[in-house]
Order: sequence, then C-alpha cells, then structure tokens
Amino acid sequence: MYFHAFESIAPKEIAPGFLCQLIHTEHNTINFLDVAAGSTLPLHQHPHHQSSFVLQGEFEMTVGGTTQVLTPQNYCLIPGGVMHGGKALTNCKILDVFSPIRQDYR
Amino acid sequence: MYFHAFESIAPKEIAPGFLCQLIHTEHNTINFLDVAAGSTLPLHQHPHHQSSFVLQGEFEMTVGGTTQVLTPQNYCLIPGGVMHGGKALTNCKILDVFSPIRQDYR
Repeated sequence: MYFHAFESIAPKEIAPGFLCQLIHTEHNTINFLDVAAGSTLPLHQHPHHQSSFVLQGEFEMTVGGTTQVLTPQNYCLIPGGVMHGGKALTNCKILDVFSPIRQDYR
Repeated sequence: MYFHAFESIAPKEIAPGFLCQLIHTEHNTINFLDVAAGSTLPLHQHPHHQSSFVLQGEFEMTVGGTTQVLTPQNYCLIPGGVMHGGKALTNCKILDVFSPIRQDYR
C-alpha cells in the first residue's frame, strides 16, 4: 500500500519520443520520462506549476521566451500559464513534478 | 528567473549522513539527498505527504510498520502522519517530494 514498483506503471507516450511513467499522489503528478534524442515538445502551457529536472542527458528548454540547456546541474521552475517547450539534445531521463494533479494525464 | 543551478543551493545536513539540497516551489518542497552508506533516519512523522524515490543505491525503508528495500526500480508514497524511517544500505541519491512545503526546512 505504501510501496510501489515502476514496472507496474504502463508507459504512456505523451508526444513522439516522450515516454512517461506517471505517478499521481495526493496533490501532485510526478512524471519520470525517457526522451529520445532529437524529440521535440512544441511550446505549450497549462495552469499547473511544473518543476523540471534532467536526471540524465541534455535538454534544450525554452520557458517564457528564455532558452537554456538543462543538465543534471540545473533545473527550471515553470509557474502555471507560462509557455514552455524544448528539444532533447541527447537521450534524456527527465523528472517533472506538477501541482496540482494533471487530471488530463490520468 | 525560471532557471536555477544546483550549485547555488547550500547543502543542509538534516541528520548525520543525510546531505540535502532543498527546493521550495509554489506548493512543494523537493529534496535531493546524498546519503552516506550506513546512515540511519529514526522513525518519525510529519503532516506532509512524502513521495520518496531512490535515484541511485539501496535504502531500507520502513513505512507504517512495513519494511522494504527501495532501489531505482520502486518507490514509496507516505501519507501525512504515517511513521517512517530507514537506513542507507549503500551510498544513495534520493529524491523526496513533500506537499505542502516543509516550512521547517526553510
């Protein structure tokens, strides 16, 4: 009841090359993504706050008109409603934390 | 303003062997921990929901009286008020997501 296995989460491809394992908790959606090099996520926005961490690899991220390469050494915090998107420069493992829960990803 | 570097977060030792880099967002505290092998965190509880992920290594976790070894293949979700604690079986990198913000860690 407290412990869970990643293998029991069916991966979901939310965009071409973006394979997600989604965990919905009490107040958050926590998303572990495997992203294939070269895959792009077009600029978009949602009302949820998003914290993004690149656990492995390099991801070129644009947030609110500013572009920076995310690596395991940095991260970005995206308030709700701010346009963002990007491109995987290498194969990446990415962690996104959303608040509140992404009902659209359930 | 959206992008941040981990090197700008001063590590905080919340218990012997548990070195934290804490990020406080709009609704969450996100904690990246380096834990030294053999370090133990006594059983404790707090009103915050906690999601715990072992990114590297093995951590023997007890939650609500049940003990399991956390690895990168599994995770645990700890509702507020549930007793938990554990021991690092190896050096570990751990990610904890708390909701709401841990004001006591600010």
